[in-house]
Amino acid sequence: MKLTSVCAALLLACPVFSYGAEFILTDSHQDVGNWQVTSEQLGIDSPTPFSVEKQRLYGGKQAGVDIIVIKNGELEITLVPTRGMGIFNVKQDGQRVLGWDSPVKEIVNPVYIDLESRNGLGWLDGFNEMLVRCGYEWTGHPGVDDNGQLLSLHGRAQNTPASAVKVTIEEEPPYTISVQGDISERTFKKAELVTQTRFETTPGSLRFSVHDTLTNHADYDDEYQIIYHSNFGTPILEKGAQVSAPASEISPFNAYAKKGLKDWQTYLGPTKDFDEMVFNLKPLADKQGNSLAVLHNSVANKGVAVKFNVEQLPVLTLWKNTDTEKQGYVTGLEPGTSYAYNTKYQRPLGLVPTIKAGQSKHFDVTYQLLDNSSDVKQALKIVDDIQGGNPVKQVEEPIVDLNNVSD
Amino acid sequence: MKLTSVCAALLLACPVFSYGAEFILTDSHQDVGNWQVTSEQLGIDSPTPFSVEKQRLYGGKQAGVDIIVIKNGELEITLVPTRGMGIFNVKQDGQRVLGWDSPVKEIVNPVYIDLESRNGLGWLDGFNEMLVRCGYEWTGHPGVDDNGQLLSLHGRAQNTPASAVKVTIEEEPPYTISVQGDISERTFKKAELVTQTRFETTPGSLRFSVHDTLTNHADYDDEYQIIYHSNFGTPILEKGAQVSAPASEISPFNAYAKKGLKDWQTYLGPTKDFDEMVFNLKPLADKQGNSLAVLHNSVANKGVAVKFNVEQLPVLTLWKNTDTEKQGYVTGLEPGTSYAYNTKYQRPLGLVPTIKAGQSKHFDVTYQLLDNSSDVKQALKIVDDIQGGNPVKQVEEPIVDLNNVSD
Amino acid sequence: MKLTSVCAALLLACPVFSYGAEFILTDSHQDVGNWQVTSEQLGIDSPTPFSVEKQRLYGGKQAGVDIIVIKNGELEITLVPTRGMGIFNVKQDGQRVLGWDSPVKEIVNPVYIDLESRNGLGWLDGFNEMLVRCGYEWTGHPGVDDNGQLLSLHGRAQNTPASAVKVTIEEEPPYTISVQGDISERTFKKAELVTQTRFETTPGSLRFSVHDTLTNHADYDDEYQIIYHSNFGTPILEKGAQVSAPASEISPFNAYAKKGLKDWQTYLGPTKDFDEMVFNLKPLADKQGNSLAVLHNSVANKGVAVKFNVEQLPVLTLWKNTDTEKQGYVTGLEPGTSYAYNTKYQRPLGLVPTIKAGQSKHFDVTYQLLDNSSDVKQALKIVDDIQGGNPVKQVEEPIVDLNNVSD
Repeated sequence: MKLTSVCAALLLACPVFSYGAEFILTDSHQDVGNWQVTSEQLGIDSPTPFSVEKQRLYGGKQAGVDIIVIKNGELEITLVPTRGMGIFNVKQDGQRVLGWDSPVKEIVNPVYIDLESRNGLGWLDGFNEMLVRCGYEWTGHPGVDDNGQLLSLHGRAQNTPASAVKVTIEEEPPYTISVQGDISERTFKKAELVTQTRFETTPGSLRFSVHDTLTNHADYDDEYQIIYHSNFGTPILEKGAQVSAPASEISPFNAYAKKGLKDWQTYLGPTKDFDEMVFNLKPLADKQGNSLAVLHNSVANKGVAVKFNVEQLPVLTLWKNTDTEKQGYVTGLEPGTSYAYNTKYQRPLGLVPTIKAGQSKHFDVTYQLLDNSSDVKQALKIVDDIQGGNPVKQVEEPIVDLNNVSD
Repeated sequence: MKLTSVCAALLLACPVFSYGAEFILTDSHQDVGNWQVTSEQLGIDSPTPFSVEKQRLYGGKQAGVDIIVIKNGELEITLVPTRGMGIFNVKQDGQRVLGWDSPVKEIVNPVYIDLESRNGLGWLDGFNEMLVRCGYEWTGHPGVDDNGQLLSLHGRAQNTPASAVKVTIEEEPPYTISVQGDISERTFKKAELVTQTRFETTPGSLRFSVHDTLTNHADYDDEYQIIYHSNFGTPILEKGAQVSAPASEISPFNAYAKKGLKDWQTYLGPTKDFDEMVFNLKPLADKQGNSLAVLHNSVANKGVAVKFNVEQLPVLTLWKNTDTEKQGYVTGLEPGTSYAYNTKYQRPLGLVPTIKAGQSKHFDVTYQLLDNSSDVKQALKIVDDIQGGNPVKQVEEPIVDLNNVSD
Repeated sequence: MKLTSVCAALLLACPVFSYGAEFILTDSHQDVGNWQVTSEQLGIDSPTPFSVEKQRLYGGKQAGVDIIVIKNGELEITLVPTRGMGIFNVKQDGQRVLGWDSPVKEIVNPVYIDLESRNGLGWLDGFNEMLVRCGYEWTGHPGVDDNGQLLSLHGRAQNTPASAVKVTIEEEPPYTISVQGDISERTFKKAELVTQTRFETTPGSLRFSVHDTLTNHADYDDEYQIIYHSNFGTPILEKGAQVSAPASEISPFNAYAKKGLKDWQTYLGPTKDFDEMVFNLKPLADKQGNSLAVLHNSVANKGVAVKFNVEQLPVLTLWKNTDTEKQGYVTGLEPGTSYAYNTKYQRPLGLVPTIKAGQSKHFDVTYQLLDNSSDVKQALKIVDDIQGGNPVKQVEEPIVDLNNVSD
């Protein structure tokens, strides 16, 4: 069978299965270094040629960072195994279409990040991805938890290098391309949470998805939290851009966001001193639990749809950071188990779920680039159908009173 | 002479001495990478063939970790130079005989560990070895010292990568195999403590030892503390396993351990919600100062003996962590200068010794695998002989009242 | 043209300009590894042959550190790109002439340093260079700033690995050798400060200099601070060594330094329990703003002159650490925007300058080895000329009362 010889030629550990070939990029005893595989090499006669490439970065705080670039023929998607299998950005025709321009320019190796620095804000030293997993031990803003422990901003997953990284390519149409990697949060007496992340796309598609399985390997139940912090700047975000998401209710995250509540669906252009406004949404879903958040540009011919399931991820945070371009002009559509408050504020809200000893939890999030009016319209129709003409209740007061709590 | 040509063939820096050959694995200007030497290559006609191998690990938080595997013909011992020359585990016939199953599965590179995280508990992110050196600036539980500085759990030595790593093999019987590495704790105005660690075993032996020399390179006297945190799980630890150690006195570490005082010598099987019980022992020794702690399984045909000298290491901590298997079913026999309390509680007890300017302190700890009833019996007889029929005084109250102190 | 073929032969990315050749040592997609270029290879017929070499270090906490050694024919200067482009030391005829003997012996990789450890003193784990840049977000002693954030000792620049490292050699006399590297302090919502550092020397010279350009890439004004912590031990520092610097005023940093105020210009030999005395100077300058601090040995035939501009660096800290040799017998001549107090104490003094959005600030510091009496005399004459016979006002009380503030 042809894949066998390809594997041998590439000198890779690649067991050939009936469904395709699996390439081990990193396990505990090897790392392939710079590496590439193409549909041509695999002898796959895909109508859309594709490739997967692993590169190592150098210099400054990105020294030693590995990236995996998946070119599916339409999109060029960059994953960062060294940073928790995050998605750095997505390009089309050489232009960034999904992602944003952070003031942080390097793809920062976690070895240079001290999460507890700046009172738990060290995560900000590396924040520049389109998709950041905030979890899984905790997910929210920094603060001292009820047990006296400082929980650093957005958890540790994104600053944990992945182990057991592998690429799988199916040999039959649609030739699904998968990239897996494990994020291990294991601390003696504290946590035994391991997340098997899986990225998936197919050649020629404008869609890609993550399918993550969090397993509690402990003999004890544990808390967990996750926010899929999905961030978009230009070219979709602009003055007059709009966000739509089926919801029963929206409320401001804090006092500052109250003044933006009424206009939550529209965006300002880059605005000095805007800083950030955050809103908490209670998403609605279809019968299968699927919900969709859609962001599109002002003329509604470019956008992105984020699909998630409310059984897995029951809440949605909307982060509007429409400050100046250099400050990071960006918005986040963030499905999660929880909002962005510190864990201690979410326990009373029932937003700190339990994962039982030995249990696994699955999270599926799909991103679709909407690159014409018709696609945008179609996505918005799904939102409308789920909303079903019901109003989104605007709650004026934050559900957590941050002014009356000690942080 | 034959060793010269072996060195040349292996392209190694290996000065040949009259007593054997020395292989520099890492110094400031080179690292041999993956490397191996065997008794056959050395032309040593040992009745038991042996080998020493250095491997680099990859993936996740163990990326960049070096291990050194010594196969002495009976035992396969894994050292971790990247983690303070700790001993990961010991195998016999391919099975782990000494060591334990920690929830932490990776051999974690210190670059991913923030010792001061979780209020000084960051050490727990990497704890899974059979031998952990807890020291040498401080050794105990985390807490703010009298000078206002947070002392993180169990010191910094184990999360300090070794420098000047070398392997020495004697050319004459018993062909002693040594592995040396320096652990440097140097901080401007704070410490100039360097520990030259030396691991030793001989081909065909069930015994191995560490011989460490701590030197205070400063012009000022300094405090130091060390615990040789020696940890054993299955197959020795099991329901009905027993520990024996000659002692004048035993007391519970804290209030929780009081209820286990009477049964300190026997072990429960894996027990949910057991957590850990810790006991402080005052060990007795023979005329040379040698003491022995013995752990054996329920039928007393498998065990381990830990030999130490009370002139060097005057106290013994017994750590019973017989919680569930996945939580880390393990016990620690821990000779030390000090117990596991924070330094500030041990100063008044006289358990924070001084090392004078320029002075060196030696620590020798020998581990012997006991793999039949007769060996176990013999070890227990040594314990009995030292104990000399005197009772072990059971002190009901902890020597430090942790309930009445602010941590 | 000859440089082109040299570049090709060395397999380097080296665009050849009209003025010379540029060698990229590290950018985001490559690192040349161990590398060397010599005047001979370049076909440069310099009266003084020269070379630039990049080496990687191994073992312990210096694993992975890159150094760049510039041999200009007179001096051998070691830069450390991995540590913020600091200058480790300077040798002449194989002997260290500038620099000092720190208790910290390794050139420590920042991945092993936790700046916030020991209440913000983690920087001390790596302090051993002749030139340390203390900045640029903040520069002084550790302490909690007005906004509640712990500012760690001497900022983050020195523990930030440089990106975009390149060597430029001019093809025409004086064949100036430059080494550039960028120090990036970028944190989402906190800082967008990038410093392009440039080191310069010429073949046969006893002089070298740094020319740094700090740029605020943000859309917002920011604070910045910098101290060029320039440190000298033996052979210049010794009993009877002297420091001279034109100044309008000198005051003790703290109560302890008061007793040394009168004798601020002379040095003790290594003195047990001396610890450190720090003095704050208000430097005087010539019409171009240039000032000069001179340190010389007791017989005034060896010394170093540090030239800086008071428009860029308006204050001068004198750090006298004439404790024992092993403790680090050293003095610092430290031109800066600020003294060594925590930022919160310097704001009221007007010593925390602002860098506007998009603005750049330049800093030029030149070091000259004085290797005979005549050179020392000439340097002292410059100091005298600037001083112009005016007295240095000795202010008895520290400008910040550290005894009456909560730290």
